[in-house]
Amino acid sequence: MARIVMKFGGTSVADVEKIRNVARRVKRESEAGNEVAVVVSAMSGVTNQLVAYVNEAAKLHDAAEYDAVVATGEQVTIGLLAICLQEMGVKARSWTGWQIPVHTDATHGKARIESIDTSQIEACMKTGEVAVVAGFQGLAPGNRISTLGRGGSDTSAVALAAALHADRCDIYTDVDGVYTTDPRIVKAARKLDRITYEEMLELASVGAKVLQTRSVEMAMKHHVRVQVLTSFADIPGTLVCDEDEIVEKALVSGIAYSRDEAKITLVGVADKPGVAAGIFGPLADAAINVDMIVQNVSHDGKTTDLTFTVGTADLEKTKKVINDAKAAFGFKELIADGNVVKVSVIGVGMRSHAGVALTMFRTLAEKGINIQVISTSEIKVSVLISEEYTELALRALHTAFELDAA
Amino acid sequence: MARIVMKFGGTSVADVEKIRNVARRVKRESEAGNEVAVVVSAMSGVTNQLVAYVNEAAKLHDAAEYDAVVATGEQVTIGLLAICLQEMGVKARSWTGWQIPVHTDATHGKARIESIDTSQIEACMKTGEVAVVAGFQGLAPGNRISTLGRGGSDTSAVALAAALHADRCDIYTDVDGVYTTDPRIVKAARKLDRITYEEMLELASVGAKVLQTRSVEMAMKHHVRVQVLTSFADIPGTLVCDEDEIVEKALVSGIAYSRDEAKITLVGVADKPGVAAGIFGPLADAAINVDMIVQNVSHDGKTTDLTFTVGTADLEKTKKVINDAKAAFGFKELIADGNVVKVSVIGVGMRSHAGVALTMFRTLAEKGINIQVISTSEIKVSVLISEEYTELALRALHTAFELDAA
Repeated sequence: MARIVMKFGGTSVADVEKIRNVARRVKRESEAGNEVAVVVSAMSGVTNQLVAYVNEAAKLHDAAEYDAVVATGEQVTIGLLAICLQEMGVKARSWTGWQIPVHTDATHGKARIESIDTSQIEACMKTGEVAVVAGFQGLAPGNRISTLGRGGSDTSAVALAAALHADRCDIYTDVDGVYTTDPRIVKAARKLDRITYEEMLELASVGAKVLQTRSVEMAMKHHVRVQVLTSFADIPGTLVCDEDEIVEKALVSGIAYSRDEAKITLVGVADKPGVAAGIFGPLADAAINVDMIVQNVSHDGKTTDLTFTVGTADLEKTKKVINDAKAAFGFKELIADGNVVKVSVIGVGMRSHAGVALTMFRTLAEKGINIQVISTSEIKVSVLISEEYTELALRALHTAFELDAA
Repeated sequence: MARIVMKFGGTSVADVEKIRNVARRVKRESEAGNEVAVVVSAMSGVTNQLVAYVNEAAKLHDAAEYDAVVATGEQVTIGLLAICLQEMGVKARSWTGWQIPVHTDATHGKARIESIDTSQIEACMKTGEVAVVAGFQGLAPGNRISTLGRGGSDTSAVALAAALHADRCDIYTDVDGVYTTDPRIVKAARKLDRITYEEMLELASVGAKVLQTRSVEMAMKHHVRVQVLTSFADIPGTLVCDEDEIVEKALVSGIAYSRDEAKITLVGVADKPGVAAGIFGPLADAAINVDMIVQNVSHDGKTTDLTFTVGTADLEKTKKVINDAKAAFGFKELIADGNVVKVSVIGVGMRSHAGVALTMFRTLAEKGINIQVISTSEIKVSVLISEEYTELALRALHTAFELDAA
């Protein structure tokens, strides 16, 4: 007997027939003698509709009222799933965030979970009753409803698994696991059996879109074993776990890419102390995340070029902020380029093995792909290249790092 | 300065533009210096969609889970209305049933309000903040969400008005008042300035769909002056009040009809004591309301036929309950007929004036309409007729009782 938290996203509960499908999976785990809590998202499309209503009511709105509106999506799903389970003869009941309660801070719209009181649901689970829990929501101070921000149901599931000391947290999604790279682009992509939290974190943050970043951070912190698998087929998924659970560590576990990058080059920036702060200070004030930064060596001892990347959604805002701050530090020209992609090779094996960056650069060079910006971390090497080379680069690197399926 | 409860139904809050329109009316009352609580329903169509989901999940379902699902409709509206009010510079916040709390009993799906703790909202109202309250819902024992049954938002509003000792309760709806009969069917129908609680009760319970029955009972019990008016125009509505507030009482105030009736005839029931209890006991246990009942004289001294009506929504459940209980009392055949309508003439004047029933029967007979079942009360005469005669019967009776507009 194990204690399991299962989580199903919006596409897995998109209509009643799909919810029934979810109920069948839950029933199987419950009838196998496991204690089961299920966390569900809103039916796909519902949250977007609710957010649209709120924005139609007022562009700038009270986040507490926003939360009261959008939290209803998950409440619908838990009731329907509980009914489907009962219909199949499985004891079940629904739990909203305030009923459990899942205590959060008061940051409405992006609340953080502070604690989960598991006493009631543990008591129910011990009687064989499945706890059907609304993801994405909690109870803020003052008895108000809060939500965790988009994708927050993954975080709810992992936080609940941690609080319940669950044996594992199964995240069902519309992909069947974590792949070495995007299988839509690289046919030879392989599904990984296991991946470390750190690698998953890098994959998530560079756009692999499988798990929400915060949920992986939380899993890592509390050592929650997370399994990513599909709700549409009966096949094993990918286990996200501690490094010591992985015996044979690959040098490179996966190759990620993100098209959501824009490159900005400031030509002819004065090469003197304080200039970088003069540029990045106003960007930080405007809540614009700067990712990669590279500064060329000085041309003439007086001026240099500075290149950095921001999310494409922030490109226009960034240009405005930089141009507004121009007087403070001065530059000759601002060149913006949205046609770039960030490609990253990721692997905990890199820590103990040099040469990954070299293999990456050589592989790209052989294909005639120019590297515009480079950044590295302990377990990741990222390069910015022209977007048109995305597929070519991914396939070449996938082969070079021996990730291709046999 | 007055204390007012305003209530807006589903068609008045059907989309964000209409919710904004509601906010304008609320703003007007608030800015006139009144203390205002607003009770709202779900956006029209939403509750039906939610109920359809639940029925798709399972025909017979846990009423507590049904409540968790359908209560979300009102939660969406309160958030949106609070945002629209804030956008117009009116202080406002939303309140769900459990936040107030509105305590109900545990009869999920048809819960009864037991008490309303007004301390929090009174404190807010005193600061000039509009309390935006979710109708139709409450908090059942065990911290579960309950709903009051369809149309329950009227009951929420009247109960809140009673608990707050409000000066009046304005029920905004898609009709501009209470009519002598359905104006869509009878062109000569007239709007009533005033109507007694008792008459309104009969009108509501037979299907005039203006106010929910329980809300009128509650208004009568607590002497809450209820005004029915439209949210789409600035015209006076109908005041529902004590009999002594009405000087000239009409013999017949209105003619109502209900298509939400199904007739069940049990052929060949044993004609002996205890059979009626054997039939109606299980129906009561299944919370099925039986309305009209008629038992024929015995054919042969041994068996008889029993006819009764239930709501069309309960027809399938009724058939199941009766067939399950068949062994206990026995009958030859069960005949169900959903193509019936109940037509009622109503008026407090009847108490002191005979002949209303006779006029009704004669009028219908003149039009060749067969009466299937009859039931009467102190201020009402109801008949069950074939649904196809609905319009003909209403128009003929409206003329016969001299209700036609000049």
